[in-house]
Amino acid sequence: MAKKSVPFSKVYQLIEPGPVTMVTTSYKGKPNVMTMSWHMMIDFEPPILAFIMSNRNYSFENLKKTKECVINIPTVELTPKVVGVGNTTGLSVDKFEKFHLLQEKASKVNAPLLSECYANLECKVIDMKMSKKYNMFILEVVKAWVRPSKHKPRTIHHRGNGLFVVDGKEIKLPSKKK
Amino acid sequence: MAKKSVPFSKVYQLIEPGPVTMVTTSYKGKPNVMTMSWHMMIDFEPPILAFIMSNRNYSFENLKKTKECVINIPTVELTPKVVGVGNTTGLSVDKFEKFHLLQEKASKVNAPLLSECYANLECKVIDMKMSKKYNMFILEVVKAWVRPSKHKPRTIHHRGNGLFVVDGKEIKLPSKKK
Repeated sequence: MAKKSVPFSKVYQLIEPGPVTMVTTSYKGKPNVMTMSWHMMIDFEPPILAFIMSNRNYSFENLKKTKECVINIPTVELTPKVVGVGNTTGLSVDKFEKFHLLQEKASKVNAPLLSECYANLECKVIDMKMSKKYNMFILEVVKAWVRPSKHKPRTIHHRGNGLFVVDGKEIKLPSKKK
Repeated sequence: MAKKSVPFSKVYQLIEPGPVTMVTTSYKGKPNVMTMSWHMMIDFEPPILAFIMSNRNYSFENLKKTKECVINIPTVELTPKVVGVGNTTGLSVDKFEKFHLLQEKASKVNAPLLSECYANLECKVIDMKMSKKYNMFILEVVKAWVRPSKHKPRTIHHRGNGLFVVDGKEIKLPSKKK
């Protein structure tokens, strides 16, 4: 799917609903990928967000060293790959090869975009003060992409132990709030 | 609905999927409530989480002064009240009265539980170091409740501007991860 730039003012709409994501990093030309659901928005524009990445993850060191990553948002069709990636360590396995993950170059960071995901957020770490105590990273989204398709993208949300709930119907109510 | 205690080890399963929540506070005997979607888990047990509360919210001062709140998780049936609460300030309006919100006493904090919500997490603020820069509060869940019903609870997720996506079907895949 061809990708399209997303205005910064709309990035929160991708993260606020709480989807499972796949975070890519790259260190010395070697990319890695992990699944991640512990994230939240901090500010609208420029889009600032936070996430928790356990220091037991191989990606943790990549992120600390490069201060760059891509947050990729998969749809339900990718769930088997999402779980496969979540159950595997990048220490000994090339997860891109094992799970046949298509990747492409990002525009502003060295970590790759996952081409099969419906959204890709290129991020730079702007604050690591809480990384030691809480494994928390604060990041700014420096470029955002979506890949429009005929079908409405349905993301997944993790309820623990491999149980996911898939996006269902939509409701629109008049709101004064962003 | 009668409420049931939730073990701390399962609290992340309520927050990780990213539902819209309603946060209650109470200062000098006067409760307030606001809607909130910018939250994430930080640790499993004891359950630690973070959320962003804009300093333009009336609840912000309540939270800073009392260091206590309840994160209430509504289901789709409550969406009109959720949006009503989100569009109103507690500065001039008693939102409990205006939106007919049923409340009951919490066990470990002074903020009330919303009886119509399917889950209630009683929280104490444990870290405000990031509250000035990012409006971020770090909290520990000190007591958690759910209200079992015949129907599977379907939460809502905010996609911006009053557009919500409702929980759809569930998928279970073998996972080694919590």
